[in-house]
Parts: sequence; C-alpha cells; structure tokens
Amino acid sequence: MSTLSPLPPGMTIGILGGGQLGRMLALAAARLGFSCHVYDPDRRSPAFAVAAARTEAAYDDTDALAAFGDAVDVVTYEFENIPAETIAFLAARVPVRPGQRSLEVAQDRLAEKSLMSELGIAVAPFAAVDRMQDVYSALARTGRPAMLKTRRLGYDGKGQCMIRQGDDPRNAWRVIGEVPSILESRVAFTREISVVLARGENGAVAAFDIAENTHRDGILHQSRVPADIGPDVAGQAVTWTRAIADALDHVGVIAVEYFHQEGSGAQPLLANEIAPRVHNTGHHTVEACRASQFEQHIRAVVGWPLADPSRHSDAVMTNLIGDDIAAWADIAADTTAALTVYGKAETRRGRKMGHVTRISPLKST
Amino acid sequence: MSTLSPLPPGMTIGILGGGQLGRMLALAAARLGFSCHVYDPDRRSPAFAVAAARTEAAYDDTDALAAFGDAVDVVTYEFENIPAETIAFLAARVPVRPGQRSLEVAQDRLAEKSLMSELGIAVAPFAAVDRMQDVYSALARTGRPAMLKTRRLGYDGKGQCMIRQGDDPRNAWRVIGEVPSILESRVAFTREISVVLARGENGAVAAFDIAENTHRDGILHQSRVPADIGPDVAGQAVTWTRAIADALDHVGVIAVEYFHQEGSGAQPLLANEIAPRVHNTGHHTVEACRASQFEQHIRAVVGWPLADPSRHSDAVMTNLIGDDIAAWADIAADTTAALTVYGKAETRRGRKMGHVTRISPLKST
Repeated sequence: MSTLSPLPPGMTIGILGGGQLGRMLALAAARLGFSCHVYDPDRRSPAFAVAAARTEAAYDDTDALAAFGDAVDVVTYEFENIPAETIAFLAARVPVRPGQRSLEVAQDRLAEKSLMSELGIAVAPFAAVDRMQDVYSALARTGRPAMLKTRRLGYDGKGQCMIRQGDDPRNAWRVIGEVPSILESRVAFTREISVVLARGENGAVAAFDIAENTHRDGILHQSRVPADIGPDVAGQAVTWTRAIADALDHVGVIAVEYFHQEGSGAQPLLANEIAPRVHNTGHHTVEACRASQFEQHIRAVVGWPLADPSRHSDAVMTNLIGDDIAAWADIAADTTAALTVYGKAETRRGRKMGHVTRISPLKST
Repeated sequence: MSTLSPLPPGMTIGILGGGQLGRMLALAAARLGFSCHVYDPDRRSPAFAVAAARTEAAYDDTDALAAFGDAVDVVTYEFENIPAETIAFLAARVPVRPGQRSLEVAQDRLAEKSLMSELGIAVAPFAAVDRMQDVYSALARTGRPAMLKTRRLGYDGKGQCMIRQGDDPRNAWRVIGEVPSILESRVAFTREISVVLARGENGAVAAFDIAENTHRDGILHQSRVPADIGPDVAGQAVTWTRAIADALDHVGVIAVEYFHQEGSGAQPLLANEIAPRVHNTGHHTVEACRASQFEQHIRAVVGWPLADPSRHSDAVMTNLIGDDIAAWADIAADTTAALTVYGKAETRRGRKMGHVTRISPLKST
C-alpha cells in the first residue's frame, strides 16, 4: 500500500457499499469536509442519499469501477464481502484502505482463525472441512456441540449450522450448501465482548472502550459499554486486536469479537471473529465518545492522525431489527433515546433498520 | 400553519439554503432517516454534497419552486434572508416551518426590536431612521455611541456603522447605503450570551444551556458553555426567548442574543437579536449535548417530540474564519479538538469555513 500525505478537506472518498455503514461513514466524512462517492449495485442504497456522487453498478463492472477510481482520491469499503477482484482492480488505480490482506483474511473464516492461531491468540478448537468425510475427523478435534460454518460469505448467523450430540453431521453439511467450511468447537462462555480499534497508516492505534454484546436469533441485539470485565481481560483483548491489526497492516477501523469465560480453569478469552471495518458494536461511539468509529475510520483512510477515542458517557446501543422500526414514534418520544434510522427503502425480517443509543453519566472514571 | 402528523422516517425535508447550516441540518435529518432536498441558487452549495436531491435555482424561479414544493413533504430554511415571497409561494403548497411570522420579524430589525419591546423584554433604546434627518432625532433618543443598522439583510457586522462622539452622522447614513434603518444605543456590557431553544408545533419548548460569546471583527469567534452567569439571569433569558418564540408561533430552533451587564444599577440583561433558525452559538450542542440543535430543529419541523437538550460536557466552540482553515492539519492532530469543515469551494476573508469544539467534563451538575 502506498503512503499518502494527509488528504485535505475537499478531497473525495470513494466508498464501496452503500448500506448503513457506508451511510454513517459518509456522514462522518462530510463533517470533516470530505466529499463522498458511493458505489453500490442497488439503486436504493441508503448511503446514496447522503453522498455527493453515486455509482449504481455491479462490483464486476470494470468500466464503472475505472470511472469511479478516476473520480476519487482514496477508496474504502463498508463490508468485507466486496469481491477481492474489485479491490485489486481499484488498488491498481487509487489507494484502497484497508488493503488486500485485511479483506482476504476476513473473507475466509479458515484464514482468519489460522492467522489468529499463528499469532498466539487463543481460539476455540477448529478444523477445515472441504468434503463431507472431513466433518468426522473435524468433530474428533472439536467435540460437540460444534458449529459448521461456510468459509466465505457468512454473516448474521447465515451459512452456519450447529452439530449437537445425536445430530447427523450430514444434515449440517447439506444445510450449509456442501461448500468449503470450518468446524468450530462451541465453547461455553459468560459473555461476548468486542474490541473496536482504529489503526493509522503509521501504525498508531486507538482503541475504543470494550463493548459487551448480546444476540437474538444470531443477530446483535444490544451492546453496552463498559463491558463487565476486569482490566486484565480488557488489556489482553486490546493487545490481541492490535496484534491482528498489525499483522494485517490494517489501515482503518477493525473489530474483533471475543468470548469471555468467567471462573477458574478455562481459558478466559477466546477470539471469535474479525471484521475489517466499522462495526455494529461500535455504533455507541457516536453518542458516547469524543470521536466516533466512523470518524476514526475516515481519519485513518485519509491519512489523518487518529482522534481521541475516550468515552464521556456510559452507553447501551440496541439494534432495531425488522419490524422493531415500526416503534419509531415511541422511540422518538423517549427522551432517553438517541435514534438512528438507516433510510432503507423496505423493512424486512432480520434486516437492520436502525438503532437506539441510551447514554448515562460515567459510573467510574 | 397547518398541523402535521409526525412525519415518518423516509419522508423528504426541503431545505432552502445550502450553506453550512443547511448542511448540518441535512446531516441531522439523515441520521433520523429523512431524505433531504436542498434548494440554493449556488451550484457549489456545501449542503448539496450531503442531500438526496438538489435544486440549483434562484429564489424567485417559480417553476423550480413549484417542482421543489411538489417533491418534498415539509420545507424549512437555513437562514432568514430567504425572500418572503419565496416562503409565501411555497407555503401555499406545502407546510413551511418556521412560518411567515418568524421570517418577517427576523428580516426587519425594527420589527424585531418593536416586538421584543411590546413583549416587555428589555432592549437598548432604539429609533427608526427612514431618512437622513431622522438620524438626529434618533440620536437624541439613543445618545452616543449608537449603531446605525439597515433594517434588512444585515449579518456578521455588515450593513452597520457606529456613530461615536464627534462623528458626522451623515457619514454613517452614507455607509449603510441610505436605506431604512434603525439606530440603536450602544450599551456597555460585560458579556454577550445567547439562548438557543427549540419550540415544537404543540408549543413545547426545550432550551439548550446558555452560551457565552466573543466576537472578532464583528463575527462570532468563540462560544463557551456554560456561560458565566447566575441562575436568575439565565432564567430571565430563557423566559424571554420563550416569550418571543410563543409570540411568533415559532416551530423549530430559534436563537436570541443578549447583552449581560454585571454590577449594580444597570438593567442586567438586554435582548439584542433574534435568529429564527439554528445558530452558530449552538454548534457545540453536536458534541456536548444529548441532542444537537440540528436534530431539535428537524424534530420540530417534522412534528416529532423534542429531544432532551441536556448537556453531558462543558464545551468551547471556536469558529474557523477565512484562512483559519489553513491550519486544518494542526487541528486534526489536536486530540482535544473536534473539527467540523463546511466543504466550501473557496476560502474567503471573513467567511465561515468550519469550527472546532473542545469538550471537557462538566464542572458542576
């Protein structure tokens, strides 16, 4: 990745992906005086409505990509499932941040777990599954229950199937579509936490305070900050996240989810998943921190120094999924609630439509 | 003004004026899930870059106005110098908030001062000046020094001229262009403060904490919150501001500037100026309050309940005027500073290019 001088306000940031993350990135970029050009195949992308320029085209449309690359000063992306070829095509024309390596690792659950393992980061036992018969040897390594996940293109609980005692592993193999996969031991844990941090081009790192997350139906329901963990666990999680960011030479925001197990004996912290981008568990940073994850990402992408990520308030962020958004009028009337609505054209079951953040004074400093 | 049901997210807000205030309004509206359609004669308007739709047309282009009115669900404006005819034309087609009366009063310094006077709000002695010979009788009323100001279209120190002891009043009359004016007594004061509050369609009011302001060359330099005033003065200022908002049947954010005079004898508080819109002295609310002035204005305009305006941090907001913006890289590297850049195409002397907000923990609660 080439080194950029800090881009001055007025330059144009290209954003691949026009969902809610792209939208919130564009809003943060605008505040710093940048123009945004959003690229997405979907005409109704929420980020189009807040961008100075829009390209509605497929990710493999090389004419559109070339024109987009010519029109912008730097490119970033809102999600890790942008085709690697798209990124490679653009990277030959314009700086792309984060780079190829962050994307490759995050697109492949096996590469992700292998990297963490190589870095000495504790992860649950796992094994590659390339064909049906691999499931049996993999189960011998992970035990049951274990989760069979596609290596690629899974998110929010999609592309995965649990194998419990008595389950026929062939069923799981069919459910996930008989594609290259990873089997992961399903470990007991007390809570899930996530580290969201930004890494600058110069290797500087700034971590937000750690969030504690709960899920419903495989989708994030709530993140609260601070997490109910001690300083040793927090320090370990940040150190590991930084090691991952360094190993990837990541530029921008990165999030790593961890399982935290309380009590003696067990390994207290296991890394679960890397997201090489702004993250749903960092949305509270808009209301509760001196700078948001979106601003930090933009700062890293344009080569600016990172901002102070410190928190001025405690916070609870709750996702509005599917029909939850129908309660917008009640939430609007709730003076404890800061509402963010993503501007999606259609409400669908399981779709993230917005979120609510409730802040309160810091309990301790 | 007709009563609206609360507009749901997804509706379109028309914003007249595409400067920095329109831009920050559009960003706040987007966060709540609204689309914005910005109308401005200038192709390079900063708010165009964050709006879902743009109309580049003159304020007297009735074809463009009619199409704009048809395309939006409600109209608001970023500044009070939109021609009254423009507002009247649109108001016949679509709800416009704030309404006609707020605009009329704010467009005419004499109407503004007269209204405040009628409401029993203390103002410095003033008199109307319609022709040269009026200046002498007006001076008899105000004493010297006094400020001669055009009744219309003045802002940031433009359209005004001081008359001191020994000055020839005919010079001031020429400087301001020999147009209908108001002469105002120039009173001594300890500090300028401003009340920024929102008023909903139902008459509910929510005031932000009062800011204390300093100027340079007639342009706001810095606002700090809290202001160094006691609760009696603060209460009086909020009560008066609310009375003005009620008298105008104002819907949206309104700001009133006051002179505060410490010490015995003098009237401690004199109202100076009304702005029927979001205000430069309220910019710190983005970083320091649970909801910003921009969100409050949008909420009022779309008929939502007002948010909690309470402050979680103390704040100092400093404007970046003209070449001040050249220091963007230093400010970006200052971790105490939250930077907002307005995205103006050209830096000009005296032009507001951005601002910096520095927050700190509340000194008292």
